[in-house]
Amino acid sequence: MNILVINASSSSLKYQLIDADGPVTLAKGLCERVGCDEPCVKHGADTLERIFDQRFDDHEEALGAVLAELTAGEKPAVASLDEIDAIGHRVLHGGDVFSKSVLIDDDVIAKIDGLSELAPLHNPPALACIDACKKLLPGLPQVAVFDTAFFQTLPPSTHMYPLPYELAKEHRIRKYGAHGTSHRYIAQRCAALLGQHVEDLKIVTCHLGNGCSMAAVDHGIAVDTSMGFTPLDGLMMGTRCGSIDPAIVTYLIKAGYSADEVEDIMNRQSGLLGISGISNDVRDITEAASKGDARASLAYDMYAHSIRKYLGQYIVEMAGVDAIVLTAGVGENAEIIRRRVFAGLQPLGIILDQEKNRTHNNGHERIISRDDSPVKIIVIPAGEEYMIAADTQEIVSAL
Amino acid sequence: MNILVINASSSSLKYQLIDADGPVTLAKGLCERVGCDEPCVKHGADTLERIFDQRFDDHEEALGAVLAELTAGEKPAVASLDEIDAIGHRVLHGGDVFSKSVLIDDDVIAKIDGLSELAPLHNPPALACIDACKKLLPGLPQVAVFDTAFFQTLPPSTHMYPLPYELAKEHRIRKYGAHGTSHRYIAQRCAALLGQHVEDLKIVTCHLGNGCSMAAVDHGIAVDTSMGFTPLDGLMMGTRCGSIDPAIVTYLIKAGYSADEVEDIMNRQSGLLGISGISNDVRDITEAASKGDARASLAYDMYAHSIRKYLGQYIVEMAGVDAIVLTAGVGENAEIIRRRVFAGLQPLGIILDQEKNRTHNNGHERIISRDDSPVKIIVIPAGEEYMIAADTQEIVSAL
Repeated sequence: MNILVINASSSSLKYQLIDADGPVTLAKGLCERVGCDEPCVKHGADTLERIFDQRFDDHEEALGAVLAELTAGEKPAVASLDEIDAIGHRVLHGGDVFSKSVLIDDDVIAKIDGLSELAPLHNPPALACIDACKKLLPGLPQVAVFDTAFFQTLPPSTHMYPLPYELAKEHRIRKYGAHGTSHRYIAQRCAALLGQHVEDLKIVTCHLGNGCSMAAVDHGIAVDTSMGFTPLDGLMMGTRCGSIDPAIVTYLIKAGYSADEVEDIMNRQSGLLGISGISNDVRDITEAASKGDARASLAYDMYAHSIRKYLGQYIVEMAGVDAIVLTAGVGENAEIIRRRVFAGLQPLGIILDQEKNRTHNNGHERIISRDDSPVKIIVIPAGEEYMIAADTQEIVSAL
Repeated sequence: MNILVINASSSSLKYQLIDADGPVTLAKGLCERVGCDEPCVKHGADTLERIFDQRFDDHEEALGAVLAELTAGEKPAVASLDEIDAIGHRVLHGGDVFSKSVLIDDDVIAKIDGLSELAPLHNPPALACIDACKKLLPGLPQVAVFDTAFFQTLPPSTHMYPLPYELAKEHRIRKYGAHGTSHRYIAQRCAALLGQHVEDLKIVTCHLGNGCSMAAVDHGIAVDTSMGFTPLDGLMMGTRCGSIDPAIVTYLIKAGYSADEVEDIMNRQSGLLGISGISNDVRDITEAASKGDARASLAYDMYAHSIRKYLGQYIVEMAGVDAIVLTAGVGENAEIIRRRVFAGLQPLGIILDQEKNRTHNNGHERIISRDDSPVKIIVIPAGEEYMIAADTQEIVSAL
C-alpha cells in the first residue's frame, strides 16, 4: 500500500511517498518556501530529497507541484496518482483529545481546528494540507497521526504542572510532549533489534535533532517526556533553551523585554547557538571545540549535561533501564556527544563501546554499547514517516 | 563561644543564641512584624521559640527587644550582653562574589549591597541587621554566612543556563542555588553519622520545608542543586511551582496577566496549595488525602514525583549515590512523602525500612533505610544555625 506522508509547517511542506509493505521510501522532498520568500526550514544533506526552492503561494499550490513531480520524469515514483492509496498527515497537536491516530472526517477536522490555539504555527497548515488533498486527491482516505498522542498515557502526576489547578484547567496548561511518533517508532525498533517485546522493556528514548526530547517508555507505555506544554521545555536544543528557572522570564520582562522578545530569545537565540555564539549545529560546535573554542566546549558540556539529567530522571521513574535509544541528526551521528553523555556511567551498568560508537554506519540500526553492558545503547535512524505510514495502513486496511 | 545567629527577612528577624562549643542553643525566637502590621512569617510549634508578636518599626528596634529579652527574667539566656562573643548573619545572596563565609567589614557590606538587586527582599534587611548590631553590640565581630556560597563550586556546565551568553552575563543570570548552609550541614552530619568522611561519599541532600531544594554533594563538593537563578526553580514546594515550561510564563502574559501577577501565581498560589486547593502544608494535605480528597492525593503524587526527578538526575550526575539525606519540616516528619519518594527503588539499591520510617524520633539524627540497603537514607534535623555558629566561631577564633 502506497502512502503519501505529509508534514506541514506554516512555511513548508515535507512529504514522503512510502510503500508501507516494505516499508520502503519511493520518493521524498521538501517545499521550503510556502507563503514566504525565504526558506525557513533547513534541509539535510539527504541525497534522496527533492528540494523545491521556488515560492508557493499556499500549501495547495505546493502539494500540486509535489504530485506533478511524483509522476514526472523518466523514472517517476508512481506511474499515476491512482497508485497512491492513502494519505497520512503529521499533526503536531492532538491536545488531550487524540490519544491515537484517526481517520480524518469533518469531526476530526473540527477538533484539530479547535486545538490550533495550542499550536498556531502547525495545526492550521496541517488542516490546509488536508483540505488540499481533498481537492487534488479526491476520495482518498486520510489519516491524522498526532505528535502528542503517544504521551497521552502520562499519568496526571507527571503531565500536570504544579500551578493553580483551575488556572491550568482553564488555559489547558499541561504537559503534552512532542516528537511522540518518533519516540514510539524507536522504542518499537529497539525492541525488535533486541529480539524482545517492547512490553518487556524499560526504554529511555532520545530524539536529538534540531529539536530535542527524551521519553521514558515503561513496558511499552510512555510514562514521561521532556517536552512540556510547548516544545520549548526540557532539553537544551540547537536554538532553544529548554527548561530554565521560570523566574528568568519575568525578570527579563521586568528588565524591559516584551513577552514576544523573550519568546524569541528562548526559542531562536538560545541553546547551542546562544552559548557558543557560533551555530546551532552540533557539527559546527564540534569543529570549533576541537580548535579550542571555550564557549563551544561549554555548549557541548551543557548539552550533554542536559541529556544526562533526563536520563537520570527516567531511570528513577522506571526504577531501572534496559535500553537507551538515540535517533535524529545528533543522536545518530554525534559520536562525541554520545561519549560525553555516557561517560563514567559504568557503575550504573551503562557502558558505551568506544569502537562501535566511533564507527559510522549510516542509516542502519545498531547497538553501540559493549557486549557486557547490562544496559543496551542503540542508534535507530529516524523513521517517524514509517510510523505514520504504518498507522495509516492499519487504519485504512480496517475500513 | 556564644554566637548570636541572625536571620532577617524584609518583615521579620529570627535569632538563635548558640554556644558553639556544644553546640547548644541557649535561646531562640522570632520577631514576626518588623515594619509591617501583619505577620508574614509562619512560625513553627517549637516550644523553645520566643515569639515577639508586637510591631517593630525596623530591624534595629526588633534587635533591641531581642537583646533585652536575652538578659531578662529569672533565667536569662546570658547574664549580660558581654557574654555574647560574636554575631553570625545568614545572608541570602552572595552572588558569584562569596564562595565562603567571611568576616564583615566595609568592603563586604558594599559587596552585599551590590548584590541586593538579586535578592531585594533579603539582602537589604541583612544589612540593616548588621548595622543594628554595630550600634547595639559595638565592637563585636560579625560574620556573613551566605545561602548561596556552598553552590559556588558548581561547574559552568551546571550553573549556566543555555540562554544567549552575553545576555546571561549582562544580567548575571546563572544558577546560584539557595539553602546552601543547610545542605552543607546535613552532608557533614550524614558523614559523621555513618562514621565516614564527607570526602568519601556521594550524597543527595534534600531540604524539604516550605521552600524545597535538593543538591548533589560529590565527595564533599556541591556539583548541582535544584534551585536556580532564584529560589522559585526546581522542586514543587508549598506554594511555589518550581520548574515549569518557561513558555507557560509568556503564554500567561499574552493571555493578559502582568509579570507581577505571574510571579505571584508561581510563588504564592502554586505548589501543594495550587494543586490541592487546600493548603501549602503537607500535614493538611495528608489529612485530606486520607479522607479521599482526589486533588490532595494528586498534590502528594506530584510532590513525590518532583523529588524523584532530582534524585535521578543526581544519581546519574555522580554515577551513583551512597546516601540520601532529608531535613526540614517535611523531610524530617512526613513519613508518607518519604514512602512515596522511595517506593519501588529497590532495583537501584535504595531500600526504605518501613518500620524505621514510621517511627518518630523528634530531633534526632537517624538512619531509616533497611540495614541491607546499599544506599543509606538518613534524616537529619535542620541545623543551619549551628553551621552559621560554627563558621562564625572558626573565623572569629582565627582573628
